[in-house]
Amino acid sequence: MPRPEDGARTLHFAVIKPDGSASTQLERDTIIEAAVAIEYNGIGYAVMMATPIDLKDYAVGFSLSEGLIDNPDQILAVDIHEAELGWIVRIELPNANAEKVIERARQRVSESSCGLCGMDNLHEVMRALPPIRSAIEVSDTAIFKALSSLREHQTLNRLTGSAHAAAFCAPDGSIQMTREDVGRHNALDKLIGALAVAGIAPASGFILLTARCSLELVQKAIVAQCPMLVTISAATDLAIRVAKENGLRLVSLARPDAALVAMPQTG
Amino acid sequence: MPRPEDGARTLHFAVIKPDGSASTQLERDTIIEAAVAIEYNGIGYAVMMATPIDLKDYAVGFSLSEGLIDNPDQILAVDIHEAELGWIVRIELPNANAEKVIERARQRVSESSCGLCGMDNLHEVMRALPPIRSAIEVSDTAIFKALSSLREHQTLNRLTGSAHAAAFCAPDGSIQMTREDVGRHNALDKLIGALAVAGIAPASGFILLTARCSLELVQKAIVAQCPMLVTISAATDLAIRVAKENGLRLVSLARPDAALVAMPQTG
Repeated sequence: MPRPEDGARTLHFAVIKPDGSASTQLERDTIIEAAVAIEYNGIGYAVMMATPIDLKDYAVGFSLSEGLIDNPDQILAVDIHEAELGWIVRIELPNANAEKVIERARQRVSESSCGLCGMDNLHEVMRALPPIRSAIEVSDTAIFKALSSLREHQTLNRLTGSAHAAAFCAPDGSIQMTREDVGRHNALDKLIGALAVAGIAPASGFILLTARCSLELVQKAIVAQCPMLVTISAATDLAIRVAKENGLRLVSLARPDAALVAMPQTG
Repeated sequence: MPRPEDGARTLHFAVIKPDGSASTQLERDTIIEAAVAIEYNGIGYAVMMATPIDLKDYAVGFSLSEGLIDNPDQILAVDIHEAELGWIVRIELPNANAEKVIERARQRVSESSCGLCGMDNLHEVMRALPPIRSAIEVSDTAIFKALSSLREHQTLNRLTGSAHAAAFCAPDGSIQMTREDVGRHNALDKLIGALAVAGIAPASGFILLTARCSLELVQKAIVAQCPMLVTISAATDLAIRVAKENGLRLVSLARPDAALVAMPQTG
């Protein structure tokens, strides 16, 4: 099982400069990106480009985000191994859940004889979500407290400068758990999986992401029933709209000195 | 047909501060993200989350990057329209090319009875690429010249602060063409399409990207036979390896004062 420190590899680089001065060299820890194939009961489901650490958490979180399971106990087994071209994560689900996998795979079949047109595919991506059922009291001060301590939890990013982080924070802004990945979606899925394994309800706090806030991150937070999402970079118009429609409190462009909350009248 | 200025929407935000001082409000141009469904000859192929501008270029570039066409003349027609849930890009290809679409769609079918396992999926993602056949002379000075003028070509990013840019540069570092999108992959596909439509060979210059450099960006540059890729943020280990294996010169972490070139002995 890969450990966090396995997310980076030291490579050698030449440094070039605008004045054309003789190039120097440096060693730099470079983030590892690998193809990670997810397989359910022997059925290839998806390949994600990810940093191959915390893959067990990823298996759980991805399965939850995809709606293939409702809780981690429905995963009978996870087998993770490195192949020549990447990693294979083999997940075993009970028959009832495996049917969902086949149904999803069928939905993605797009042949003219039986398949989906572009309009069907739009409906799948813009699917209805379960509105957030809980609320949470988080002061602005707590948001900035979480922001200011995030950096010390970003082990892989300190090494590589290239890792996104997803952190789960208690309502007082203390960071409970952090996961990292070269991809922001993966970092969030790893966090969601780690919370589920630890028995921590996403409804009990808020999620802080180093990323821009796009639709898919909002969808994952809503499916996880986390009532609040804070992102360091800006949100897209669609992320803001879908967050509002489903009762997710969205704080974006969260910096040490200020953050933005989309206002109700803008939807 | 959407214009570049249609890539942003003005929304209203409340500004919160760490000291809990009374919140102020501001208007901010927010980047538009939309589901864009790509359909070939009536067959739903993919849905990408993208900024719905320059979608004709995107249709051409995506088709080239996916290996479904070799040149833009193979596209018989492109029909772009906005639906309730997003955009639909309907592309019409000759029968010979449409067969590739069906073949690709079949490859993505993952049923236990007939389908692909995770290992097959890894092979598809880590597919062999056509090595770069041409070389190009670009001085370090030309790289920094392109970098220093990039900002003035980023119309949508000046508005929103959230758009990635892909720019094509002549060997002397002058920027010939730029495309923007909320997604870095889309920005690159739009650029590749725009170059093809304009009859500019990607082999005649280099591509500059505002993004981190991950595998898929390197794959797209190689398929387009562009001999050099410069990215503002860091490259992953896999991006560096695949670039080397296929003769793509990769310059990463390109900042106004320095940039990094991966060294041969590091592979």
